[in-house]
Amino acid sequence: MTRIDGRAPDELRKIIIHPNYLTHPLSSVLIECGDTRVICAVSIESKVPPWMKAQKLPGGWLTCEYGMLPASTHERMKRESSSGKQGGRTMEIQRLIGRSLRAAVDLNLLGENTVSIDCDVINADGGTRTASVTGAAVALNLACRCAASRDMFADYPIKENVAGISVGIVGGVPMLDLCYAEDSIAEVDMNVIMTESGKLVEVQGTAEGTPFSRRQLNELIDLAEHGLKQIFQKQNALADAVARGITSL
Amino acid sequence: MTRIDGRAPDELRKIIIHPNYLTHPLSSVLIECGDTRVICAVSIESKVPPWMKAQKLPGGWLTCEYGMLPASTHERMKRESSSGKQGGRTMEIQRLIGRSLRAAVDLNLLGENTVSIDCDVINADGGTRTASVTGAAVALNLACRCAASRDMFADYPIKENVAGISVGIVGGVPMLDLCYAEDSIAEVDMNVIMTESGKLVEVQGTAEGTPFSRRQLNELIDLAEHGLKQIFQKQNALADAVARGITSL
Amino acid sequence: MTRIDGRAPDELRKIIIHPNYLTHPLSSVLIECGDTRVICAVSIESKVPPWMKAQKLPGGWLTCEYGMLPASTHERMKRESSSGKQGGRTMEIQRLIGRSLRAAVDLNLLGENTVSIDCDVINADGGTRTASVTGAAVALNLACRCAASRDMFADYPIKENVAGISVGIVGGVPMLDLCYAEDSIAEVDMNVIMTESGKLVEVQGTAEGTPFSRRQLNELIDLAEHGLKQIFQKQNALADAVARGITSL
Amino acid sequence: MTRIDGRAPDELRKIIIHPNYLTHPLSSVLIECGDTRVICAVSIESKVPPWMKAQKLPGGWLTCEYGMLPASTHERMKRESSSGKQGGRTMEIQRLIGRSLRAAVDLNLLGENTVSIDCDVINADGGTRTASVTGAAVALNLACRCAASRDMFADYPIKENVAGISVGIVGGVPMLDLCYAEDSIAEVDMNVIMTESGKLVEVQGTAEGTPFSRRQLNELIDLAEHGLKQIFQKQNALADAVARGITSL
Amino acid sequence: MTRIDGRAPDELRKIIIHPNYLTHPLSSVLIECGDTRVICAVSIESKVPPWMKAQKLPGGWLTCEYGMLPASTHERMKRESSSGKQGGRTMEIQRLIGRSLRAAVDLNLLGENTVSIDCDVINADGGTRTASVTGAAVALNLACRCAASRDMFADYPIKENVAGISVGIVGGVPMLDLCYAEDSIAEVDMNVIMTESGKLVEVQGTAEGTPFSRRQLNELIDLAEHGLKQIFQKQNALADAVARGITSL
Amino acid sequence: MTRIDGRAPDELRKIIIHPNYLTHPLSSVLIECGDTRVICAVSIESKVPPWMKAQKLPGGWLTCEYGMLPASTHERMKRESSSGKQGGRTMEIQRLIGRSLRAAVDLNLLGENTVSIDCDVINADGGTRTASVTGAAVALNLACRCAASRDMFADYPIKENVAGISVGIVGGVPMLDLCYAEDSIAEVDMNVIMTESGKLVEVQGTAEGTPFSRRQLNELIDLAEHGLKQIFQKQNALADAVARGITSL
Repeated sequence: MTRIDGRAPDELRKIIIHPNYLTHPLSSVLIECGDTRVICAVSIESKVPPWMKAQKLPGGWLTCEYGMLPASTHERMKRESSSGKQGGRTMEIQRLIGRSLRAAVDLNLLGENTVSIDCDVINADGGTRTASVTGAAVALNLACRCAASRDMFADYPIKENVAGISVGIVGGVPMLDLCYAEDSIAEVDMNVIMTESGKLVEVQGTAEGTPFSRRQLNELIDLAEHGLKQIFQKQNALADAVARGITSL
Repeated sequence: MTRIDGRAPDELRKIIIHPNYLTHPLSSVLIECGDTRVICAVSIESKVPPWMKAQKLPGGWLTCEYGMLPASTHERMKRESSSGKQGGRTMEIQRLIGRSLRAAVDLNLLGENTVSIDCDVINADGGTRTASVTGAAVALNLACRCAASRDMFADYPIKENVAGISVGIVGGVPMLDLCYAEDSIAEVDMNVIMTESGKLVEVQGTAEGTPFSRRQLNELIDLAEHGLKQIFQKQNALADAVARGITSL
Repeated sequence: MTRIDGRAPDELRKIIIHPNYLTHPLSSVLIECGDTRVICAVSIESKVPPWMKAQKLPGGWLTCEYGMLPASTHERMKRESSSGKQGGRTMEIQRLIGRSLRAAVDLNLLGENTVSIDCDVINADGGTRTASVTGAAVALNLACRCAASRDMFADYPIKENVAGISVGIVGGVPMLDLCYAEDSIAEVDMNVIMTESGKLVEVQGTAEGTPFSRRQLNELIDLAEHGLKQIFQKQNALADAVARGITSL
Repeated sequence: MTRIDGRAPDELRKIIIHPNYLTHPLSSVLIECGDTRVICAVSIESKVPPWMKAQKLPGGWLTCEYGMLPASTHERMKRESSSGKQGGRTMEIQRLIGRSLRAAVDLNLLGENTVSIDCDVINADGGTRTASVTGAAVALNLACRCAASRDMFADYPIKENVAGISVGIVGGVPMLDLCYAEDSIAEVDMNVIMTESGKLVEVQGTAEGTPFSRRQLNELIDLAEHGLKQIFQKQNALADAVARGITSL
Repeated sequence: MTRIDGRAPDELRKIIIHPNYLTHPLSSVLIECGDTRVICAVSIESKVPPWMKAQKLPGGWLTCEYGMLPASTHERMKRESSSGKQGGRTMEIQRLIGRSLRAAVDLNLLGENTVSIDCDVINADGGTRTASVTGAAVALNLACRCAASRDMFADYPIKENVAGISVGIVGGVPMLDLCYAEDSIAEVDMNVIMTESGKLVEVQGTAEGTPFSRRQLNELIDLAEHGLKQIFQKQNALADAVARGITSL
Repeated sequence: MTRIDGRAPDELRKIIIHPNYLTHPLSSVLIECGDTRVICAVSIESKVPPWMKAQKLPGGWLTCEYGMLPASTHERMKRESSSGKQGGRTMEIQRLIGRSLRAAVDLNLLGENTVSIDCDVINADGGTRTASVTGAAVALNLACRCAASRDMFADYPIKENVAGISVGIVGGVPMLDLCYAEDSIAEVDMNVIMTESGKLVEVQGTAEGTPFSRRQLNELIDLAEHGLKQIFQKQNALADAVARGITSL
């Protein structure tokens, strides 16, 4: 059985990560997963949110915002700034990315700083939220190295790499890394965020029409694990390359 | 090991469902799960959303809104109508409830109608989103019987009962049906929505600080299944009682 | 002449007040006036609004918010949080309730505190704003006793009980405590808020179509006084019962 | 006892009405009551609001909007368009003006038209809402004559003139037509809208601190009636003058 | 060739300036340019915007807001406060007026104060933004004299008078001071803001359909200069008159 | 005299245009002017805005939206969708781009279609609005060829190429194509939009502090013309290349 784009069911799309794609933020990447392209940028402000101040919580905070260019989708999407609010899907996604990245850092080591991550989808072809997590993790890594070299943090705050991938059941077949054409007809759609050591950070599985069994749940997570191992290799290779001065992989 | 409120780790809180709690909507329930109380109400309008019209999709639609009374929470919550928008958590929850209930119905059998479900939390003590799914499923059942008796639908549209429960890991121990005090210190928090035949509709697991293993994921879903079996019995007993004219269980 | 629900023109609907209906706020009641049900909750924050600070005004403040559950009305009402603002009717009502309750307290004795009252209509059948005033006055009483027992205030701040009732002219006949069916066809609609000693706090009379005479104005206020005397007895009985540990009247 | 500006307690401020003050709307007036100046303008659109269409109600509608220039008040007021919403006071006032003017017309005779009245306060010195009602009634009269001459309506739709005035108790003394300095220290503040035949359209009395007696209520309405008789004469004289081509009184 | 209202192509409309038109702000004018009437008011607050504080910038700030009464335009305009935001045209205009007036003052001499200018169009017949600049400049002058006399500023902050005028090409003919009927059919529309010494502060020329040549650009600015000389005379005559106690020119 | 980046005063930054940068819209380009990078995308919908319908205007419409990624600027910019509205600068810019592009097309030839252009700034270093006009003109050209090949329009709707460039006076020296570091200290800032035949579409010159003379105005427009001639060559070369299948210049 081959897929719409010729891949095997357990095959990832091609991933390319361009480090430091923008000139102003502390760090940034353009991540491409097939035709899905997301710019992930990291900024750090030396203050914490009011609710942390009010509760006198120690350490820092990490937050994320997600957006899509109006022309990034199949049908042009209404611009959220002109409709006057972020939609439910946007909010749901940026909360997911934020939680996932917070799982990667020790907030106590951030000091009284807020790390802001912007994930902006330039071109969408499925899997934008998991590409955002994967790209943001790389950008966060670059930012923390940079911040550490400037003594901005007490200690290096990243605990472990995280990355995300989508899996789903299409026509009864569990598949890895759905593109939009697959995603829009999938019976089950699942996003899995893991740490490099193989622990789960987020599992969000949704039956679109047909509920799924415990066995199918486990097959999907197997598939996700299989894909994420390759993605962690990619993340690490990129980090090494940047350290050696190479700028695209 | 006993819990903060004396329950065993695999023990549900007491559930009471008051059918037809309100006088105006087609159907409604007040569901109590321990100190969590939610009013779930169902209204039906004979029209479909513009995007369905535009795409000429057949059948009807089901949508959900979720809210909390400002005084329902430990600290008074700012009223969302006066802050001018629904927060991200609210949107995330009402999208989850809507998807879960849509999994319970055959949208094609709804005819050109929109079913609106309002889940309003009167008093919150953890598990408000899963109590909403469970209560909304009962209210939807009552509404569909009523609508069917008025020939509003081509055929009875409910495919199967759904219900939801929260599970989590607290102090390393997997627990069923977390109350707020447990939820706020849990390492892992998971919401599971199932059909009565034991299939998964939604699995949303989040590591709050400590990532979880595949084994823990399975233990949590075992616990959820254990609790949901009792909840389906409760739902069915209530439906029978209403059919026999009894009004609270 | 009998009314739609069999009452005499000068007869109140049955009033039931459930004290401390919620678990989190300082105090709360569920008040039922016929089929109109309102939850009134009181919270106290140890700060005053910015405009009081700016003007260096002494004492504290009392404010009120009012809302209706979408399913509380005959036709489902659009949720104000999702339409992005409170409507004019909501604002008008919460301003009225706030003014009425401020008339009951000596703001100077509140200290640098803000009392927030939330009135949320669970089920509506006419007279929701006056039921809110009556219920909020009871909840405020309970809250002040509680706050006084914790030495939160310099002195007991309540000057005198207040309560409200609606009156109107329906088919030429002055009537007390209109239900929705009466209210929607009334020629004149009037809300009267009084102190227990018989002084007027608010009089808001509106001719819906047919203007009214000075004589009719006085008949309506007579009727309101007649009803309010019974309501004050109810309020006092409830306060005594709570003091003696009884929890519903 | 003389007042802050030398008037007797039962004395109105000087009223000047400039008809057709603006060049574009169907009719308009600038009304001056002492230093309070309000522009009232009437526009007619040949359509009715969606809710009238939905309920298939016959006839037309009349609606009102109220605003204050930021520089019209003692302290510069924040511009409501830049704060993104109309405040509660604004909404309360425009609803009052709308109800008062609807009492003056037979909506059935308007045909399928919506009359929009804009009352914009140029300079504020107390009594802006009642000046708005009085001015809007004159502008509505001029508009209806004009519309009638163009056969826009089935029949002349105005049933009777309406006008409004504020009264209050200041330092224990009932007073007519409060200016801002009086209004801001009044114990009781009341707005009375009447028809020319002496019937009440709206009575809105509020105790600001000190509740008032039934006797005081009646004294205040006596005072209002006394003032309104003079205002109706003024309105009629202006209407005659316009009919004779004179443009300011 | 004569124009729609009989003027020569290089002829201004009649300008009347009423100083201190309002009772509350520090200064105000009603400026009439033909049928265009704008109220310009100046208020001063002893604080600077947060962004100046954050950047520790010395001196003060000057800002402007612009609005139109709904009934000021040919077709009634939707009220911006009820539509919930200021439109793009409004924002564009108030930014232009603000920049123009800031060019007239030495912000360093304002001290830690913010000058707020409100330009509210009462009646519109073309050229409202340039009438606003001209009127605001007069009001600012009056305010600064007043503020200086109260020692609010270190030194007199106005560097030079500014004023604005519109020019355009209508039917191929360059014209000065377009009225609405001309503006709505103009091929080119240009707003020119100048200092009294003949320097340019803002030039905003827009081709509405037909692009214009360099020669035409220069002809239009010649025309604007011709008109602005007369306007500066008018501004100065008014200032002298106010100094001598005369209140309208 | 050399500039901050070594250019001569009359020297453009390097321009690169990547055609069809996105996969979904009808056409798109990524334009780079030095470090300023903007994605311009064109979508066409077969309907016209309500106001055109209401006025029964013939032909179609062209509209533009502009946005900046939060991480595109020197300091991270607040995301407009999360602050709930587009700022004044954004509105001003998108109105300018829209007017400029409308000058390039014959709206009557568009048929009953609306052309939507999205200009999204990925990285900002001055001149984003003029880069947007230049890039949008190329994308519009590509879109119209594509639309023409599908017979979407009655006739080819583009009248003439347009492009934009910024000029300014920095340290007394007129300069072409300011980068951000120059723009932020410029005495005069001017944006010039021209047609390929050398006619002016928009001239927007603003004195930031120091007003400018007629002579300086002409020098600046000379400079702009000099730069725009090279930009038109670039646009044409790109169009030829695309026609020949080459995809980046």
